[in-house]
Amino acid sequence: MASTPRQSLIELLEGVQKFDRDVYPDHQELFESLATGQSPSTLFITCSDSRINPSLITQTEPGELFIVRNVGNIVPPYGDMLGAVSSAIEYSVLVLKVRNIIVCGHSNCGAMNALCDLSSKKFDSMPTVRRWLRAAEAARATFGPLQAEDVGPETIRSLAEQNVLLQLTHLRTHPAVVGALARGELALQGWFYDIATGKITVLDEATRKSYSVDEAIAHFQSR
Amino acid sequence: MASTPRQSLIELLEGVQKFDRDVYPDHQELFESLATGQSPSTLFITCSDSRINPSLITQTEPGELFIVRNVGNIVPPYGDMLGAVSSAIEYSVLVLKVRNIIVCGHSNCGAMNALCDLSSKKFDSMPTVRRWLRAAEAARATFGPLQAEDVGPETIRSLAEQNVLLQLTHLRTHPAVVGALARGELALQGWFYDIATGKITVLDEATRKSYSVDEAIAHFQSR
Amino acid sequence: MASTPRQSLIELLEGVQKFDRDVYPDHQELFESLATGQSPSTLFITCSDSRINPSLITQTEPGELFIVRNVGNIVPPYGDMLGAVSSAIEYSVLVLKVRNIIVCGHSNCGAMNALCDLSSKKFDSMPTVRRWLRAAEAARATFGPLQAEDVGPETIRSLAEQNVLLQLTHLRTHPAVVGALARGELALQGWFYDIATGKITVLDEATRKSYSVDEAIAHFQSR
Amino acid sequence: MASTPRQSLIELLEGVQKFDRDVYPDHQELFESLATGQSPSTLFITCSDSRINPSLITQTEPGELFIVRNVGNIVPPYGDMLGAVSSAIEYSVLVLKVRNIIVCGHSNCGAMNALCDLSSKKFDSMPTVRRWLRAAEAARATFGPLQAEDVGPETIRSLAEQNVLLQLTHLRTHPAVVGALARGELALQGWFYDIATGKITVLDEATRKSYSVDEAIAHFQSR
Amino acid sequence: MASTPRQSLIELLEGVQKFDRDVYPDHQELFESLATGQSPSTLFITCSDSRINPSLITQTEPGELFIVRNVGNIVPPYGDMLGAVSSAIEYSVLVLKVRNIIVCGHSNCGAMNALCDLSSKKFDSMPTVRRWLRAAEAARATFGPLQAEDVGPETIRSLAEQNVLLQLTHLRTHPAVVGALARGELALQGWFYDIATGKITVLDEATRKSYSVDEAIAHFQSR
Amino acid sequence: MASTPRQSLIELLEGVQKFDRDVYPDHQELFESLATGQSPSTLFITCSDSRINPSLITQTEPGELFIVRNVGNIVPPYGDMLGAVSSAIEYSVLVLKVRNIIVCGHSNCGAMNALCDLSSKKFDSMPTVRRWLRAAEAARATFGPLQAEDVGPETIRSLAEQNVLLQLTHLRTHPAVVGALARGELALQGWFYDIATGKITVLDEATRKSYSVDEAIAHFQSR
Ligand SMILES: [Zn+2]
Ligand SMILES: [Zn+2]
Ligand SMILES: [Zn+2]
Ligand SMILES: [Zn+2]
Ligand SMILES: [Zn+2]
Ligand SMILES: [Zn+2]
Repeated sequence: MASTPRQSLIELLEGVQKFDRDVYPDHQELFESLATGQSPSTLFITCSDSRINPSLITQTEPGELFIVRNVGNIVPPYGDMLGAVSSAIEYSVLVLKVRNIIVCGHSNCGAMNALCDLSSKKFDSMPTVRRWLRAAEAARATFGPLQAEDVGPETIRSLAEQNVLLQLTHLRTHPAVVGALARGELALQGWFYDIATGKITVLDEATRKSYSVDEAIAHFQSR
Repeated sequence: MASTPRQSLIELLEGVQKFDRDVYPDHQELFESLATGQSPSTLFITCSDSRINPSLITQTEPGELFIVRNVGNIVPPYGDMLGAVSSAIEYSVLVLKVRNIIVCGHSNCGAMNALCDLSSKKFDSMPTVRRWLRAAEAARATFGPLQAEDVGPETIRSLAEQNVLLQLTHLRTHPAVVGALARGELALQGWFYDIATGKITVLDEATRKSYSVDEAIAHFQSR
Repeated sequence: MASTPRQSLIELLEGVQKFDRDVYPDHQELFESLATGQSPSTLFITCSDSRINPSLITQTEPGELFIVRNVGNIVPPYGDMLGAVSSAIEYSVLVLKVRNIIVCGHSNCGAMNALCDLSSKKFDSMPTVRRWLRAAEAARATFGPLQAEDVGPETIRSLAEQNVLLQLTHLRTHPAVVGALARGELALQGWFYDIATGKITVLDEATRKSYSVDEAIAHFQSR
Repeated sequence: MASTPRQSLIELLEGVQKFDRDVYPDHQELFESLATGQSPSTLFITCSDSRINPSLITQTEPGELFIVRNVGNIVPPYGDMLGAVSSAIEYSVLVLKVRNIIVCGHSNCGAMNALCDLSSKKFDSMPTVRRWLRAAEAARATFGPLQAEDVGPETIRSLAEQNVLLQLTHLRTHPAVVGALARGELALQGWFYDIATGKITVLDEATRKSYSVDEAIAHFQSR
Repeated sequence: MASTPRQSLIELLEGVQKFDRDVYPDHQELFESLATGQSPSTLFITCSDSRINPSLITQTEPGELFIVRNVGNIVPPYGDMLGAVSSAIEYSVLVLKVRNIIVCGHSNCGAMNALCDLSSKKFDSMPTVRRWLRAAEAARATFGPLQAEDVGPETIRSLAEQNVLLQLTHLRTHPAVVGALARGELALQGWFYDIATGKITVLDEATRKSYSVDEAIAHFQSR
Repeated sequence: MASTPRQSLIELLEGVQKFDRDVYPDHQELFESLATGQSPSTLFITCSDSRINPSLITQTEPGELFIVRNVGNIVPPYGDMLGAVSSAIEYSVLVLKVRNIIVCGHSNCGAMNALCDLSSKKFDSMPTVRRWLRAAEAARATFGPLQAEDVGPETIRSLAEQNVLLQLTHLRTHPAVVGALARGELALQGWFYDIATGKITVLDEATRKSYSVDEAIAHFQSR
């Protein structure tokens, strides 16, 4: 049975006590050195899904990844002034001078599932989810008509990959990104993360194919 | 000297190789059990700042926190259909049935700094950042006129705390949140995270005061 | 039978003649003194409903209440630049320096009725009403599912009260309001007006309970 | 000296007591008859200005005027879904079947004053007022360049009249209005109210001239 | 059978070769004289429909008509900052100082057809078309309820004419237009183009009647 | 000296008389055959500039090109529901089944000029132009800081080419386009038109280089 709000709040706060007591002392020096500034190399955009831990899967320390997380790892195209994502892009590229932007999708993504079923009645009570996923609709359009009931893990994976490629296209509509790319100061990359196996694959924009991490490293080192 | 885009991309991918080789095997069972679904207890909303690792500071495992990250841990009030944050609230409360929403601000926050200086010329090239921080402007308004040059760590901390309280107010404009609160199925809480000391303090909406984690646990257990 | 447009226009104009002839002379001095400026103490936000006369129920003279009226006495949360209500808040607080904002709901409110039935076909031809009432949706969410046919005067009253409390929350997202509250220059208050009995009750934000006017005066005088 | 928030709140509540005690009894029958519905003949759109009392100047009873009040008696053109004014138009024309829409401007209007000076620094802290008055900008455009310091009462009056005519044009972009006009079920009229003298003048859309109330009545009766 | 994308692209490019070889030499002088600037007399707003050639039907040369084309020859009312049409109006009136704006509708217009059937299921996959045509909805409202199946060429023609008149009203909400009209530097005119007969008729805003071109010329010359 | 509004209106109407008398008879059969439908092969998106005649430069007949024209031949990215361009894309791809979309920029484009100078005071009176050109800002970002006074014809040409490539990227964010591309039913192409010489060059998205029409035809025929 699910815990009550109070129980789960106490558990979280006990986790904080544990961090304070058992974990912080080992990282004290690092945290103190970070007290007055950050200089991350990468803007990492991924899904809000609770099963993804960007620091864990990249084995990075605090200070290395500037992280944006939302439902479906979406990057709205430039133009909507209000955007949580647009402002993070602008800030991280122009102020923090990140050198990479990674868009990371994943297996069993609830947002991709929702995308196949968005006109169903069950989303009538979720107008904001419906509106938000419009920015992933062009990924779904590559599949033709999809029946929610026929959509299995393979389709969801494939849709998640198309979605990552679409969001990379959206990144290329943001002036800050286009300017930094033109100056050779920025690279973009798409990733797909398989939760069960822990494997990352790298998606290539030009060929729209995916590569293993080993292949991607070899490719970059050979240049 | 800052690494090139290519160098930092290779480093990230090497981190992924390390995760794959050294870390995943120890968590394989957990990750496999998470392959087909998630059931997080908490929606955790925090800043994109690279120095914050929500899983680390709450000592939680993959699967426990549904995470939204943006510049300034902002929750726009309900009404803007397009919102990255609004859709995550709707999805996590109505579909995932999270029992808590935590809004977590932090020390030395670049967004709070920017908020004190938003009309300066240097933000002319960042129209999206300027627009986004409008949703934190009411926090700044509690301070009266601020001169960017006089703003020290104490003001930034205080502003970050006011901002967390404002974003909790914004949460209370979202129908999904208001409904779940009325049914007793959800709790909201504000946190402030001090990077240097690793300390979390808990912010109380009613009194607008802050408490230590120990005090907060004692308070909840006594109810 | 309803009058024609022409008839009702003539009646209105005859009312103006009557004002001119019978009423104005008694107020001439007051009106002349108001010719070059206003200094109202209060921003009074109420429904467009034809049965509400703010000056009558508060027994105030011209010059005392700065009045905003719309369908459902709604205050959209801050962020939507275009807002009729937002601009009136900004103008009255920053320019006119009003000391109070009253949000006044009422019995038998058509907007509250519509709110219980918004997805019905009859609102397909009223997309703007539907959109506007989104800013009251969080009030409806406190009730769980409502069937339009089961909604009686008690539910409408209760919904109108929840709506007033929600709009007070929305007021607290506006920088001008938050700033003036922090400086102690402004108070907010929620009212409910019962048309049949003419009774105002005062709604308390903290306790979410309602008080009689006598109780409210006693409370304020005792502080 | 201006009263404190608490003082002015008490005064308002004392006014309510007075209404309850001295005024309501004389109108009890009317108010009771209005308890379960309204059937106003007219949608009356006027400025929030505290010196205007629509019921007083038209000598109407509760139940006759459905009233929208905002800064500058503005009617945004159709298309902005969120509008306080648009929803009131839609509701009053389609549900309440009002037979008239009056747009009433006035002398010494703060909004007209602001409109002449909108790019000045003093409106930098009022972005919402600036945005809202865009819907009156076409009225200002009829005057060519205006210097804030040269703008006297005559220009403000003239601008207020142009503004009323513009808002009538905006009314003609709303489908509900256009439909009712085509069916002969609705009339539109522009008014200008001079605070000092209490005089209403009627503005004619076709000739863009103004008429006295006597002339206007004569005109309508002769048709 | 419809050509493939490649075939039709080659055909277009062959048309360009033909222009280059056979047509350009005869106009070389004109084109060279236009190389560094334009000074069109008219902003011509018409439908994207492939059967309309504005230069052909007005027998004008390159350099004379500044042309805006969209689905349904629509002019959204002023206020939506993003508009393709609004920016063209602003630019052509304020920078190019055009002396006329023509809005030209036409027979058998697909947009007018769609307007009669917009709530049907077939437009569920065209949310942008549905949204765009809201700016023509007030034209449809003059007809009362229309059944898609009963809509013949006469209704479409009549609707297209009402739509042109509505778009002229929308033009009168744009400050640049209102200003230039007030200075006597601009005229507006509505046209209807019948594809089969090639006939233009001129629509009069005041009388809402249509005139032949001969009548319109006679009218203007007599003034 | 520029003609008056009346003069230039009469001239246009005389052009219509000439078309009617001298030109229509030769095309009567074509126009009659087009009376009840259109089947264009191509959506042609170009600038409103008066010096561009799409039918002339492609030597096409009425019925072949579905034409969208706006300031700067801009295609806003998908997401803005209101768009003149978005609705034309949706309609032409989904209803008319066009097989090509051409985006055609040109030399001496006023919009490109404006783009280099957008923050200058002279655009303070043109807020809509400024807002509209945001959708071309990423093209300008490829150039680094540009001084309006240093911008010559070569930079404008280069900027116009980058803008065409950006607008092709924007096309790839529209679901209707992405779907038709995935099914092999649509091709996209960028063109640059030099007004003085009448030459079209074809821009290649992958290489970001330009080709002559002859080269482009040879390339397509060889596939
Ligand atoms: Zn996901
Ligand atoms: Zn931060
Ligand atoms: Zn009401
Ligand atoms: Zn006023
Ligand atoms: Zn058409
Ligand atoms: Zn151009």
